[in-house]
Amino acid sequence: MPYLTQKVAFSASHFYWNPRFSDDENQRIFGACANTQGHGHNYQVEVCLQGKIDPKTGMVINFFDLEPILAQVILKPLDHQNLNTQVPYFQNKIPTLENIACYIWEHLSPPIRQAGIKLHRIKVIENPSLYVEYDGKADLPC
Amino acid sequence: MPYLTQKVAFSASHFYWNPRFSDDENQRIFGACANTQGHGHNYQVEVCLQGKIDPKTGMVINFFDLEPILAQVILKPLDHQNLNTQVPYFQNKIPTLENIACYIWEHLSPPIRQAGIKLHRIKVIENPSLYVEYDGKADLPC
Amino acid sequence: MPYLTQKVAFSASHFYWNPRFSDDENQRIFGACANTQGHGHNYQVEVCLQGKIDPKTGMVINFFDLEPILAQVILKPLDHQNLNTQVPYFQNKIPTLENIACYIWEHLSPPIRQAGIKLHRIKVIENPSLYVEYDGKADLPC
Amino acid sequence: MPYLTQKVAFSASHFYWNPRFSDDENQRIFGACANTQGHGHNYQVEVCLQGKIDPKTGMVINFFDLEPILAQVILKPLDHQNLNTQVPYFQNKIPTLENIACYIWEHLSPPIRQAGIKLHRIKVIENPSLYVEYDGKADLPC
Amino acid sequence: MPYLTQKVAFSASHFYWNPRFSDDENQRIFGACANTQGHGHNYQVEVCLQGKIDPKTGMVINFFDLEPILAQVILKPLDHQNLNTQVPYFQNKIPTLENIACYIWEHLSPPIRQAGIKLHRIKVIENPSLYVEYDGKADLPC
Amino acid sequence: MPYLTQKVAFSASHFYWNPRFSDDENQRIFGACANTQGHGHNYQVEVCLQGKIDPKTGMVINFFDLEPILAQVILKPLDHQNLNTQVPYFQNKIPTLENIACYIWEHLSPPIRQAGIKLHRIKVIENPSLYVEYDGKADLPC
Repeated sequence: MPYLTQKVAFSASHFYWNPRFSDDENQRIFGACANTQGHGHNYQVEVCLQGKIDPKTGMVINFFDLEPILAQVILKPLDHQNLNTQVPYFQNKIPTLENIACYIWEHLSPPIRQAGIKLHRIKVIENPSLYVEYDGKADLPC
Repeated sequence: MPYLTQKVAFSASHFYWNPRFSDDENQRIFGACANTQGHGHNYQVEVCLQGKIDPKTGMVINFFDLEPILAQVILKPLDHQNLNTQVPYFQNKIPTLENIACYIWEHLSPPIRQAGIKLHRIKVIENPSLYVEYDGKADLPC
Repeated sequence: MPYLTQKVAFSASHFYWNPRFSDDENQRIFGACANTQGHGHNYQVEVCLQGKIDPKTGMVINFFDLEPILAQVILKPLDHQNLNTQVPYFQNKIPTLENIACYIWEHLSPPIRQAGIKLHRIKVIENPSLYVEYDGKADLPC
Repeated sequence: MPYLTQKVAFSASHFYWNPRFSDDENQRIFGACANTQGHGHNYQVEVCLQGKIDPKTGMVINFFDLEPILAQVILKPLDHQNLNTQVPYFQNKIPTLENIACYIWEHLSPPIRQAGIKLHRIKVIENPSLYVEYDGKADLPC
Repeated sequence: MPYLTQKVAFSASHFYWNPRFSDDENQRIFGACANTQGHGHNYQVEVCLQGKIDPKTGMVINFFDLEPILAQVILKPLDHQNLNTQVPYFQNKIPTLENIACYIWEHLSPPIRQAGIKLHRIKVIENPSLYVEYDGKADLPC
Repeated sequence: MPYLTQKVAFSASHFYWNPRFSDDENQRIFGACANTQGHGHNYQVEVCLQGKIDPKTGMVINFFDLEPILAQVILKPLDHQNLNTQVPYFQNKIPTLENIACYIWEHLSPPIRQAGIKLHRIKVIENPSLYVEYDGKADLPC
């Protein structure tokens, strides 16, 4: 069964701060990311789906069916948002790339499963030098 | 054993139309892609091969040996062609990205095997936001 | 005055054929592009506008005002079309990258001028190795 | 005289809000960018310099001399910052791409001139579809 | 457990020459790469790590801990070097992309393991059309 | 008149060393580039031509006519070469990006002029962060 990957992009701001660390520890561990006024990124998400090709359409999934799921699960809650202050999931979790991948995996798996196919892997890109992949093969400490 | 990936590119036109669907269904399911005059893409193909490194050359496969296979199997039949009208494989199969990946996998596996190495995976990219991968691990409904 | 550039992308098919040339001449001059069944590309267009920054918005032009112009002038007539058979402009003109740039410049200048700013330059990209730019500084033989 | 271009990248958050507009006007004009909690981007800056080639080094400017200027003028004040709340220049100016280009041009011209060469043009890229260029040829309403 | 990938880049020169081959064989097998004066590339390395997310930092590994490892193992010995004449590993081994991947895997695995996480895969890119991946799942003839 | 740009790529090695400088000066001024064993890059060259559109072909220049010029002037003398030791032009000139642009401009202008069009500008890219442009508008100290 082939793997179909669709990319979407969103812009968001975030910062790294653990209230259990002292100010100095936050600075030492998170560096410039500890600025609580926030900075931001153009995030890209690659959603990799696995499924049978429907012989009537030649497709694993029709983009017209996939697009509203991606809009609802990724773009609506994350695009043009401050991840720390506006996404409840990150109230007690630092919005690192790793945890953003958790967020997307957890919220995307159910509607993709409901659409009859399998979410195989996601890739979240923060900048041209850094990305995280997750394929659900082990429990995440989310 | 390492994986060596070589990319090639081709330009082709295609359209999506299932003669068993009504005109309205074709429009609804395939949208702008249902225009039977065709549109097109710059396709990129990443061919991922797995094999031992030949200690005499330091290579999994010499590009001079790989290039004529890619030219014969991918470029000659697909480049600057109308996939619907000029590639017999797509006479009864919609030339979606998924089915193009089928075509390439089926035609590329035998000559790569004959060259003594293994076709591990192919990736076919239609535009910067969409690609399909296939690794032959399950039967494709081709 | 700064230059603001917005990119848009469209997919289209085309072929090169001059009915005044013999078949052999068409083959010799246009090579694989002479296949009248058509091939295609993911075209990208960079629209470069020059204007004053509106101090109330900090913008040369609001994207909400620019987007419908680009949709009307570029996407609607060209996206998912066969340029040779479905765009009247190319009935007697070969849809080369140069002539596509002509088409876009001629159709985009009036609505941009009406929006109160200046179309400074367009760039049309056919593939990663080839692009045409035009800035309207000399008459095009369109 | 040739043009040498060096790129640098920074991450920052921003939002668009004009206090003289009503809330509704801010929403209508700036859309998702009006979220005052901020969102962010990976900005790229291309600094284009014009100068004679020093025959002793073969260079317009030595990167070892250019790098501290770019670090001081672009990275230190803008990287990992909230442009609205942490960069005084944007206290009364909306941090659009156009105004960020103003900021960089105004602050970069003097030290580049002092280094004996000419700042020819800057390009600031907000995302793969949007960039602003400025060459100082007209007064900016900064 | 998620996969975190960090990219680094280096520039190096190399050439392909097997002293056990005749001059003619070297030319025939390696083509332009047999020029013993060397040519070069901008290599990119993608280092893919697998590990648990530390709930205190939200990270698989802190970049401040990873960066010195990559600098020590990849950049210091390879960047701005002639791989054939200046890297002892390649004294009796042709510095092909496959063997460069061997070098990096062998030298990177121990310090990454010492840092408490797992080196999952590396990808070494020689140019936009060619890359090698290695995941240590079989013995390399290094 | 429109501008048509064609890209070509070549791989070469080089180093920076001025024999009139002391060893210490070479190290201080050129840093890692002073390693006389050489390092290398994947260079990209964008050749921008200006000319009338031939109404019979719709083209500024036919690629079949341009390609042999680029192969003869750029690829044959520079690709897979050590610029310092194998290109006579750089015997007394440091092969910086600025001087490589000189080389290409000087050698490319005559054959392009003979082909009846104008070489408008060249751009030579050394890595994703650095490029030089030259348009022949002032004498180069070549």
